[in-house]
Amino acid sequence: MVIDLNADLGEGFGIWTLGDDLALLDVVTSANVACGFHAGDPVTIRRTCAAAVDRGVSIGAQVSYRDLAHFGRREMDVEPEELCAEVLYQLAAVDGIARAMGGRVSYVKPHGALYNRICRDAAQAEAVVDAVADYDPALPILTLPGSAVHAVAAAEGVSTVTEAFADRAYTPAGALVPRREPGAVLHDVEAVSARAVRMAVEGAVTAVDGGTVEVRARSICVHGDTPDAVRLARAVRDGLLEAGVVLQAFA
Amino acid sequence: MVIDLNADLGEGFGIWTLGDDLALLDVVTSANVACGFHAGDPVTIRRTCAAAVDRGVSIGAQVSYRDLAHFGRREMDVEPEELCAEVLYQLAAVDGIARAMGGRVSYVKPHGALYNRICRDAAQAEAVVDAVADYDPALPILTLPGSAVHAVAAAEGVSTVTEAFADRAYTPAGALVPRREPGAVLHDVEAVSARAVRMAVEGAVTAVDGGTVEVRARSICVHGDTPDAVRLARAVRDGLLEAGVVLQAFA
Amino acid sequence: MVIDLNADLGEGFGIWTLGDDLALLDVVTSANVACGFHAGDPVTIRRTCAAAVDRGVSIGAQVSYRDLAHFGRREMDVEPEELCAEVLYQLAAVDGIARAMGGRVSYVKPHGALYNRICRDAAQAEAVVDAVADYDPALPILTLPGSAVHAVAAAEGVSTVTEAFADRAYTPAGALVPRREPGAVLHDVEAVSARAVRMAVEGAVTAVDGGTVEVRARSICVHGDTPDAVRLARAVRDGLLEAGVVLQAFA
Amino acid sequence: MVIDLNADLGEGFGIWTLGDDLALLDVVTSANVACGFHAGDPVTIRRTCAAAVDRGVSIGAQVSYRDLAHFGRREMDVEPEELCAEVLYQLAAVDGIARAMGGRVSYVKPHGALYNRICRDAAQAEAVVDAVADYDPALPILTLPGSAVHAVAAAEGVSTVTEAFADRAYTPAGALVPRREPGAVLHDVEAVSARAVRMAVEGAVTAVDGGTVEVRARSICVHGDTPDAVRLARAVRDGLLEAGVVLQAFA
Repeated sequence: MVIDLNADLGEGFGIWTLGDDLALLDVVTSANVACGFHAGDPVTIRRTCAAAVDRGVSIGAQVSYRDLAHFGRREMDVEPEELCAEVLYQLAAVDGIARAMGGRVSYVKPHGALYNRICRDAAQAEAVVDAVADYDPALPILTLPGSAVHAVAAAEGVSTVTEAFADRAYTPAGALVPRREPGAVLHDVEAVSARAVRMAVEGAVTAVDGGTVEVRARSICVHGDTPDAVRLARAVRDGLLEAGVVLQAFA
Repeated sequence: MVIDLNADLGEGFGIWTLGDDLALLDVVTSANVACGFHAGDPVTIRRTCAAAVDRGVSIGAQVSYRDLAHFGRREMDVEPEELCAEVLYQLAAVDGIARAMGGRVSYVKPHGALYNRICRDAAQAEAVVDAVADYDPALPILTLPGSAVHAVAAAEGVSTVTEAFADRAYTPAGALVPRREPGAVLHDVEAVSARAVRMAVEGAVTAVDGGTVEVRARSICVHGDTPDAVRLARAVRDGLLEAGVVLQAFA
Repeated sequence: MVIDLNADLGEGFGIWTLGDDLALLDVVTSANVACGFHAGDPVTIRRTCAAAVDRGVSIGAQVSYRDLAHFGRREMDVEPEELCAEVLYQLAAVDGIARAMGGRVSYVKPHGALYNRICRDAAQAEAVVDAVADYDPALPILTLPGSAVHAVAAAEGVSTVTEAFADRAYTPAGALVPRREPGAVLHDVEAVSARAVRMAVEGAVTAVDGGTVEVRARSICVHGDTPDAVRLARAVRDGLLEAGVVLQAFA
Repeated sequence: MVIDLNADLGEGFGIWTLGDDLALLDVVTSANVACGFHAGDPVTIRRTCAAAVDRGVSIGAQVSYRDLAHFGRREMDVEPEELCAEVLYQLAAVDGIARAMGGRVSYVKPHGALYNRICRDAAQAEAVVDAVADYDPALPILTLPGSAVHAVAAAEGVSTVTEAFADRAYTPAGALVPRREPGAVLHDVEAVSARAVRMAVEGAVTAVDGGTVEVRARSICVHGDTPDAVRLARAVRDGLLEAGVVLQAFA
């Protein structure tokens, strides 16, 4: 019974901040550090990497479309050659900063619209996988189970790690209920914590129809962009520890 | 009699290009690759690095202020912590891409207004040197002789390499005549080539008063942003080879 | 027999230029001025507007997705509220500069991926039309015939003007042959000029199957981003004038 | 006894926000709306202008250096032609959006490093004044008393309006104590409110040496980027109203 807790960090830009990075770094075992394309200026990246290294938290490169104005949340028809080079650039920049701080990038987590797109768009998925393979084929990609990027990665010899969401409703087929639907996001702290424990211990979650679906995940994603979110993340961590689950980074 | 020829490359951005990179890569022994802050998108960086590796040309990180709108040509009062992190980010990004292409960054050349600023501003010079020291203290910094950055680098154990300009007029004190003064830039191909040869062979150049000044440079900077500039760069190369000078990267 | 010739202008950014704006301004009757989101910095916008006013050329706001890195050529899933505000911002900025130069924006021409998207995406088309209606409902939108934006504009009381392309192949149904297909773009100067004349005089063009299709256009779009393109644009202009067609802006 | 209260608003960008704009709009009589160069995306600008129009708050264009990464807080050596065009672009963009929302830009307030620079740099001051004169010479510029921009504006027939800071310490000569010095910024709510009243009623403030210095200001600047700042701004407003001062926009 071992699980990883990951969260997005370093998502400020210049004067603007988002979330309480230091609070979250005391909760998670893996930090998805924004690389500068949807958020994350060099100072923020360096501070976030240094704080992660201090706490023994694993560092991931949270690569994104180039879109500060829309926080990487809008899908873009970027050509594979460009996307591959953009991912490579981000990955190298954050890894170099992490190494200068005494750590290193241990995995890659695509952000926002890119994360969603490569679940179903094999061409963009291949561009991301190519970038990882070009940089360091030993770096795993953290993503949803069953998505296009898994097959593409497997074919190139790049490993993937799957994550689950304790605060999201699941369909009977094991997919996430889309955010726009009512009840898609759970806010009750105890319920969310209990779901995380069940995910880690049983590899299962209760779907919206009351049935049980299998959720094989090596990592659980938590959020920290609001004070409530940090409280929820802490509750998930505490619940897992009380249940005897070992919190350990996957990379 | 060994000299390096360096030039700025990869200074396009997206649809926009500047200069004939492939023509220049056949002339120089060191390529100062734009890192994305004054010019240089990831695709351009990757192509430029790949072409440099193909030709055995040494790759340098041409780090800059963050200023695409003004091509890094406007001085900025950036605080040292920010400047250091910005240089580190650029250096890491280009080195990572160069390594993915089978090469690596072998030196750092600050660009434009940053290049000028760190000749006299010790605080900004220290920020740049710190970034290099944090990333890889073995990387030399290519700059003008006698500037503030040399002393700062020496104190931190980072080496510096000096360059000269065959197409620029020199004062009797050995400084460059400012561009805004008449005669500051030489355009005569044979004269420029002959000056380059004298710089390499004798370590000297004729100043504006007709006297001789010492110019100890391990590298000569050539330009390539116009067809005429490429012709001039080729003439410098040919002149040096004819004079028996060995063209060899310093790093 | 009256026709307008329009072209994209001011598509540089900072140090980078694209095309010969002054040469084109002597050819066209309408200048689609880049607004800063895919190209066009404020200095370039001001110079382009001033030169257009000098020559009596009509000024249009060439609005775009916010995407300097990809020149506005990648489709984006921007939400209507954002797109509307972004178009309004661009339109207002260029109109204000044009007025300061003694002219004004007389029409709107969406650029690149946005131009294509609003031919079929009614939600984004409505966002663009809303912006125009909010700013000045008397401004016409220049676009392809039969596209989604025409219906949306008509419903809001905004007029549309259709354009044709003398150097593009047409299908028997009157659509443009996609650029990726062979023969999609014509390069023969005399043939292109003759097609322009037929478009203006007969409102018709020869399709790829040899048949004749109707092309009702008030404007013909010419390009100017290469020396050859400027030559082609001049040939189109000369051909039209020789055929007795009156060149006149539509707005 | 009439005074204006002004504050910076709309200083978010995309996902990032700064300050409580709606709370401040209920306090001030003039809103300095960020124009997109240091902060302020088009959606934010539109919402801020609409809310200002709803409340009858005067709208100013808070023009800045182009520097999202550093929030316009770093001085830049921008050439006058570029600076002038950049200010014109920002001013036109926000005025156009304000008009689409039923209002208009009534004044110009330079932001951050530009605000400070044009207090002493006549060339940059002239660039800003030229932009205002080109766009609408009837628009006043809000700035510090006695700065370079006043003389330049007067020479071009552009009016200036001076502002004071109730929460800043003043030297015996009537200048602001630099922020880096201890005691430069006052935090005591009652003291700040009392200073604002004295500024409005007597045109005077107590300097750091206990003496009285004249402060002729038509506007007092308040901040709102923290909850405490909004409280302070409200206290200033309440104090002024209780003292019988009429709060009225200057433009």
